[in-house]
This record gives sequence, structure tokens and C-alpha cells, in this order.
Amino acid sequence: MRFVNIDGHVHALTGVFDDPTTRAIDLAEKTWHPAEPVAFLAAGGLDAARELTFADDEGVLLSSVRVDPIIPDPRMVWAVGLNYRAHAAETGRPLPEFPALFVKSPGAVIAHDEPIVVPRHVREPDYEGEVAIVIGRHARDVDEADALHYLAGVTIAHDVSARDHQYVTGQFSWSKSFDTFCPLGPLLVTIDEIDVGTLSIETRLNGDVMQSSSTADLVFSVPQLIAWITQGQTLAPGDVILTGTPEGVGAARKPPRFLLDGDLVEITVGGVGTLRNRVQRS
Amino acid sequence: MRFVNIDGHVHALTGVFDDPTTRAIDLAEKTWHPAEPVAFLAAGGLDAARELTFADDEGVLLSSVRVDPIIPDPRMVWAVGLNYRAHAAETGRPLPEFPALFVKSPGAVIAHDEPIVVPRHVREPDYEGEVAIVIGRHARDVDEADALHYLAGVTIAHDVSARDHQYVTGQFSWSKSFDTFCPLGPLLVTIDEIDVGTLSIETRLNGDVMQSSSTADLVFSVPQLIAWITQGQTLAPGDVILTGTPEGVGAARKPPRFLLDGDLVEITVGGVGTLRNRVQRS
Repeated sequence: MRFVNIDGHVHALTGVFDDPTTRAIDLAEKTWHPAEPVAFLAAGGLDAARELTFADDEGVLLSSVRVDPIIPDPRMVWAVGLNYRAHAAETGRPLPEFPALFVKSPGAVIAHDEPIVVPRHVREPDYEGEVAIVIGRHARDVDEADALHYLAGVTIAHDVSARDHQYVTGQFSWSKSFDTFCPLGPLLVTIDEIDVGTLSIETRLNGDVMQSSSTADLVFSVPQLIAWITQGQTLAPGDVILTGTPEGVGAARKPPRFLLDGDLVEITVGGVGTLRNRVQRS
Repeated sequence: MRFVNIDGHVHALTGVFDDPTTRAIDLAEKTWHPAEPVAFLAAGGLDAARELTFADDEGVLLSSVRVDPIIPDPRMVWAVGLNYRAHAAETGRPLPEFPALFVKSPGAVIAHDEPIVVPRHVREPDYEGEVAIVIGRHARDVDEADALHYLAGVTIAHDVSARDHQYVTGQFSWSKSFDTFCPLGPLLVTIDEIDVGTLSIETRLNGDVMQSSSTADLVFSVPQLIAWITQGQTLAPGDVILTGTPEGVGAARKPPRFLLDGDLVEITVGGVGTLRNRVQRS
């Protein structure tokens, strides 16, 4: 199934995100589950939603409304550096032996179609298209073989990165946490509908393809990331993991191509949809 | 003023934490402000609390109750590496040019007197006593000169650190985010009661002094940290910043002294109090 967040309520979709006939049905009116996305996941809302049937005219036309971030204020946003083989190569670094985990601030999260507003002191803002996963139940010390059981589904993230700040201290978190630097959504596709091991991902900048890869190129797969992170640490429903970006980032181009005022960045993940945001620089 | 969190409600203290006659008064019964600590701060509860007077027999004896973490589930826990001059020296690293910011998971936060439970795969757990500050109001692009205006007050944090994981990828966040690796509290002292620039800090391991310093040795002062972090990023009420640890950590000793089963770690900050936690290893 596919879900979006509209005005803080989880809605089920009757079709894919880009279809103009797709309708969004407010689950607060259809189940006893809390409608806020994290509470919905924690209460087992995904299972309840599978039992529902919808009439043809229920809900609203998705194309007529704005969506919120699929998880508006995540408790935790883990992200992982150098997790595509070809991206590690373009940065000139060896393949990591262990996941290089950093954190993005929940305050950076914005919705599909909201503007990425670059602070004035950031001179080298760069795009990073990423497959993002959303945790569905409390998870600690998870075996790789069971890891997908803890996953609610997949969404799309844009790990906007200030290259001029990323490397000066060695710690990545702050340079990737500016307000608006984490577009997230537009929708959640449940894990039963997709194969997280073979998802295509493409980032387009003003229509030009800049990144094109597949999660088959991940150094640490989605189950491996969940197993690694939960060693001694508890992930909670609604936690988000950005799984890394493929090759083709602006900083690795010759000459580098950083984000400019008015740029349109679209990230498409096969079977999931497209996350689209425009850049504002002052 | 001094505050603690008991059963999720902010309580005002009539004296210092260690005085057996100090009473804790539930502010949910004394003001119209929400009692949950973050909501209390966001609603201006500190200002309202200053107007209150208490009868001699109000509330409960603090010594008779357990306190919760002063902020139980922080939206954001920033922490900063190498922020005491003498600690940077003991690690053999140069003084940082910019704050080396990483994040601790909110899931790591525990209360005063709760056990630090070391996961089996962590072989080199280490102590780091720290002065922690709590943000009182939304803050973005703050000038250093105005920074203290955005601060609710000061508490104490223990930045428990898995040294065997901290340096393998270069990113610090994961190795410092294991469940129970962020004792926080026991109390919040408002900023008008203390001088954050000259706070003494001492860490004792089973009674032996291991760290002894003052925030006068900070590379980046509290106002400088707030001004730096909020460049293009919004801090919110209840966000926590761990300001760094002084020299004397276990990893820098010869031979190294990592935490053992049964160790008692006490961190005392002058004018604030003592945060005490015992270590459990399996």
C-alpha cells in the first residue's frame, strides 16, 4: 500500500502518486488508529489499513492537495556516508569497512514541493538523492535475516549537504542539518510492495540526469544497516534511515556543480515515486 | 531556580539537590503551564515559576522520590568533540578551528541513578563528564552577545563513549548513542543563578577524581556554541547541547582505564549538583 501525510493525518492512496485520478483517504475516518504518522505506525496502523476497502468516490483527489513530510518530526534521522560503491570511488575514498553513520536534525525535514532555502553562509550546497527507509516497530539487536520485519516501508530523501562545512571538522551532522536540508517523501510504500535490494534511483537537476543507480550497488544493504544500527541501540516507529547516495554528486564533477537559485531537483525511486524541491538562494 | 522532572512533571525545588530537607513541588498544581518539561519551557514556564511562593510543607521531600531525566526524550542532543584545551592536548590533536559537532540519540538518555548498561559488543566504554545546556526558546541565527537569552539553564550529562567504535569510521554519533549512554540531569538550574563561563566540573570514578576542570578552559564558550550551531539552523525549547569533556578520560590514561562492571561514575558541576550512575557490564 501507499500512504501520504496530509494536514498531519495518514491517508491511504488508491493509486500511484503521479496519477491524476489517485485519491487520498483519511484513515482517521476509517480506523480507530491514531492518525498522526508515527503514532499510526506504532499502533500497527499498516496492518489495519490492509483490511480496508474504499468506494470509488472516497477521499480527495491527491493532485488537489499539498502533502506534508511523510514523517514530519522524526525522533531520529540516521544517514550513512559512502554507501554506494561507485560514489565511494568518485570521492577517492576506500570502501568503508563499517557504516559511516551520522545524524540529520529533525528540524531540517520539509515536504515534497517545499523550497530548499540555503543559508547565506553556505557557499557549496550540493544534492544527494537517497532511498530512505521508515522503521515500523521497536527494533534492537536485530538479525540481518529478520531486519525487513521491522521496516514499515520506503520513501525518498534529499540529503542536501553543505560541502564547504562538511569536511572542516570531520563530523558530518551539522553541515547536513540546516533548516530545509532534508526533503522527505512524498509517500511511504510498504515493504511488501517492493524489493529494497533492487530499487532504481535517479536524481535530475533541471531535468538533466545527475545520479542514476540502484540499491544493488549499496555497500551495506538495507537489512545490514538495520542489523548494524540496532546493535545495542533501539530504533523506534517513525525513525528514518537515509541509505546513502550514489555517484554523481555536484562536488565530484569537474568543474563542481553546486546548487543555484531556482534549481529544481527531482529524485525518482522506482516503484516509489518522485520527490521534487526547488532551491532558493539569497 | 532549580527544577527536576518527577513522573513527567516539572517540579520546582526549594533548595539544592543534595539537601535532605529540599522539597519538590509539582508545577502542574501551581501554574496553568503544561507540566511536561519541553512543553513547560516552550510555554514560558520558567518565567511563571519565578512568580510563585511555596509554603513550608508543600510538595514532597526530594530525597524520597526518583527523578526522571530532566529532558526525557530530547528532540536534539548536540555534542561537541575536543572542546577543552587540555583534553584536545591529551588526545594529541590540534585545537579545533570550528566546533566538531555530532549528535547523540535521544534513545540513549537515562536518569540520575539509572544504570549504564554496556552492550556486549562494546569492549572499551569510557566516561566523559560534561556541562550540558538546555535551550529555552526557538533560536536561529543568534548573535553571540544575545546567546544566553535563548538558554533555559544548565544541567549535567555523561557522554558515555565506546572508544572501540568511535574512530573506525570517523563519525562519532553511533558510538555514543547506545541505549543508556546519555545520563542527563538530575536537575536544571536556570541561567540567572550561575556563570556558565566559570563552572567547575569534576568526574569521579569510584570516588577517585578522574577529570577536574572549569568551563573557563572551553575552546568554544557556551555563547559561541549557540551562535555557531544556530547559523541557518533552528534550536527548539528542550534541545540539549553537551559542551564537551575535559582532560582525564579513560582512553587517554596509561594504561587506559575503561569502565568496568559495578563502577560508580559521579559528575559534579559547581552550583548545579551531581549526576551519578552505576555501570553494568555482562
